[in-house]
This record gives sequence, structure tokens and C-alpha cells, in this order.
Amino acid sequence: MKPISSRDNPLVKRLRALATSARERRKHGETLLDGAHLLAAALDAGWPLKQLVASEGGAARAEIVALLARAPVALPRVVLPDALFAHVSPVDAPSGVLAVIELPAAPPARALEDSVVVLDGVQDPGNLGTILRTAAAAGVHDALLTEGCAQAWSPRVLRAGMGAHFVLRIHEHADALARLAGFPGPKIATALGTGARVLYDTDLDRPVAWLFGAEGQGLSPALLAAAELRVLIPMAPGIESLNVGAAAAVCLFEQARQRAAWQTSRPPHDD
Amino acid sequence: MKPISSRDNPLVKRLRALATSARERRKHGETLLDGAHLLAAALDAGWPLKQLVASEGGAARAEIVALLARAPVALPRVVLPDALFAHVSPVDAPSGVLAVIELPAAPPARALEDSVVVLDGVQDPGNLGTILRTAAAAGVHDALLTEGCAQAWSPRVLRAGMGAHFVLRIHEHADALARLAGFPGPKIATALGTGARVLYDTDLDRPVAWLFGAEGQGLSPALLAAAELRVLIPMAPGIESLNVGAAAAVCLFEQARQRAAWQTSRPPHDD
Repeated sequence: MKPISSRDNPLVKRLRALATSARERRKHGETLLDGAHLLAAALDAGWPLKQLVASEGGAARAEIVALLARAPVALPRVVLPDALFAHVSPVDAPSGVLAVIELPAAPPARALEDSVVVLDGVQDPGNLGTILRTAAAAGVHDALLTEGCAQAWSPRVLRAGMGAHFVLRIHEHADALARLAGFPGPKIATALGTGARVLYDTDLDRPVAWLFGAEGQGLSPALLAAAELRVLIPMAPGIESLNVGAAAAVCLFEQARQRAAWQTSRPPHDD
Repeated sequence: MKPISSRDNPLVKRLRALATSARERRKHGETLLDGAHLLAAALDAGWPLKQLVASEGGAARAEIVALLARAPVALPRVVLPDALFAHVSPVDAPSGVLAVIELPAAPPARALEDSVVVLDGVQDPGNLGTILRTAAAAGVHDALLTEGCAQAWSPRVLRAGMGAHFVLRIHEHADALARLAGFPGPKIATALGTGARVLYDTDLDRPVAWLFGAEGQGLSPALLAAAELRVLIPMAPGIESLNVGAAAAVCLFEQARQRAAWQTSRPPHDD
């Protein structure tokens, strides 16, 4: 490993560009995974990495040493001085290790057969990544992101997703209404007020297209109009709504609970 | 209203200090509510305000005009040029309106009788505020925050809390173990692995002290050791854990669901 000490080093300039610019990520077709937990999730999933980068401080930490030992032997790796690593890190508190990966191709636009989350205009990277993580944990396999969402493969969304990107099919720039034509279950929006039914009284043991809008704005009128059902989460007085990530967690895990309950509530020998 | 145009204006300097420094907030005994939604929640709750500040652009928006009309007539109010408002705003995207309030006194250290959330070392203001919002929405009345948490009444936590601060009793710098001595229900931690029971198979129709740790670090060893129960949220393969805010949402609303189900599953005339 050659020591690198300058911000003008081509690799450093490339990493910095990938860390800070969606346009540069698209131009190079690459993005960054930041942090030991996220890299471990990528290795667990067998996700192909192109380059490993550690800080000097990071390369001395047991967690990162173990991680580097797990990565394929042939994978290029480089150690940067801590200050230079901080310069190229996409997060405020540099984690000590990151990897370059290719931006993946869009998943095939097949018909959607099981539950899907539709994220409409979710621009906050933390919220977007958190909802992807929650959806993957709840057993959802597809996420449709409309044009107004943050770039799904940005380092901050990847970081908040904590591995969700490696198990979900993420359809960016999706024409959600077109993709949901013929979907074999209800499109459900979360809503306040009249016409909404209580989440817990709703049959969720079937494919559902969950429609979640941005904090504040909510769903676009076209998507809201397309929802066959509106559900509400009963809340205590004085609080009007949940953060979109919290609302998604409650809805998606209520569905997971109902589906598992349905499986186990059948008598074992019934067919 | 006198026009204010300088960063050296005493009110501007005070607002800027409150927006940016926990120490200044403690010194002055004041903090800032940012944004029309949060201010509306404060007015709904009858929370006392000391001063209203709008940007010129904000004061021309219907939502903010309506808000200002609802505030008590005697409340001092001032309009700042947009650039100056941005200078004193505690958020990246200035909302156009904010209010000065007093930092409230600590709630009385009475015995805790119903469910409580214990937040241990939650430093991220967004996560902290989101969990407070979720807890309030789920009907929890008390939150214990250990020493390592972010300042609960900082503008960013208030913003993420979206009114939760006006309905919860928030106990900062809490000695959680001492406060939970004699608590009439289980202390429950969320956990992976052995010894944990499935959340949905756990009786939550009773007072619960929910223990949530920081993203990454988890709970302090002393709090983890004090938990009588560990519950797990069943997850799909490939995802190891949820964001702490999502996990709290699933747990707290599963409890709310069980409690409401218990109420409605009783025959109407049974006593």
C-alpha cells in the first residue's frame, strides 16, 4: 500500500466527489458504503465491492481489522491518514472504513405480486433509508420511489438503510400508478379524519401497496386518489400524527404480525 | 413594530444564541419553537409563549397569518427581513415563524405509575424528538432521559417532537434505575438473540418501562441488566435490526393495540 497524503490524489478526489455529489455518483456509476456495520451487511449479502478504504485510526480498530480480513483477498484496499479520510467521508462523524461499489442497474420492471412500499417525495435521506430498512425487516421485497425522492443509493441513505439495499428491489424514478396497475391487493394510504378505518381492524393478510408521502407534504393528490383504503393509527389526544418513518414501522409490522398470526392460528393438521 | 436590520440588534443576538447553543439556552432559561406546525401545537396546548418572530416572507403566508391571529393579543411580535430570520433560525430550511418560550421546570419526581419510556444516551436530536412524538402518540405520559441524551428542549428536538413536549412529562438527567425502583410493571428491553421473547406473545396490557438505547451503542450494561424482560421483533432474513425510532414505534403501538383490544374484547356489561 502506497501512502497517500494529498487531496489532489486521484483516488481521494474521486472519493470526495462520490461522497458529496449525486451527479458525480451517476457520472462515475459508483457510490460509497460508509461504516463497519454497513460493510458487514454488504459482505453478508455477497454484494460486490470495488475498493476498500480505511483511515489509519480505523485500520487499528479490531472491528475493522476483522472486517478487512473477511473481504475478498483480491479486493484493492488503501489506508488514508485520518484527516484525509475525514475529507472523503460522506458522514459528519467518520467511521474509519468505507467501500466503493457500483451503482446497481435498475431491477427488472416485472409485475409486482406481493406487498410493496411506495415512497412519494421522501427527500430526507435519513427518513428514506430508515423506511427502506423497516420495509426490508418487515419482509417487503419491493420499494417504488417516485421522482421527488432522494437518491436511494446516496451514502447517507445507504447508511440509514443499514443493509436494506442489499435485500430489497429498489425501483427509482418510478411511475407508481403505472407500476401498480393490476396489483393484486389494495393500495393503502395512512390518513387522518373521516373515511379512514382503524389499522388494527383492517385485513392486512394479503398483498398491500403501502403509500407513504413526505413529512409535511403528504402524498401527491393522484396517489392519494388512487388509494382504495385509508387507514388511521389511533393516537392519544394532543398528538396529530407520527413521523413518516414511525408510521411506516407501525403499519408494516402490523401487517407482519397479522400474516404470522394467520400462519400460526391454523390448526396444525388442517388443510 | 420597529424594523430590525442588523445582526447586532440585541434581540437578534439573543435569538441566534438560543438557536445555536445549549449553554446559552440554559443561561437565559429560554428556547425556540420553530415552524408553524409546532407553534400551532403549542397554542393548542395552551403553552405560554414569550415572543413571536416571523420573517417578512413568512408573515405574508396565509398559514402564518392565521397562526399569528390565534396568538394572544398581548404577545410581543416582531418581523425580521428574510436573511436575518435565516440567521437566527435553528433549522437549515427556515420555516418563516418561531417563538421564544421559557425552558420549563423539571416535572415533579413523583412515583411512576403507568408506562414510561427510558431513553439512554440518545444523542441524535431527530431520533430523540421522533421517539418522544411516538411515545406521546401511543399514550405514554412520562419519558426518562439519561445524562447522555441530547437536550430535550433544543429547537431541533422540539421540531422533531412536533408537540410531544407539550403533553409529556420529560425528566432530563434522570437516574433511571433509581426512578424505576418500585415501578409496578416490567422493565423491557428490545434485544436480539437468546432469552428474548417475541413482542407479540408478550403481555403488554400493564404498565411497562420501555428501555431504548442509542443507535449503535444500545443500552448501558446497568440498564440492560435491570430489564426483567427482553423482547424481539421478528424480522425477515438479511436485516439485523431496526432504527431505534422504528423499534420504539413498533413496541409502543403494539402495547397500545393490546390495551385497546383488551378494552373492547370485554363484554359490555361485565364488571
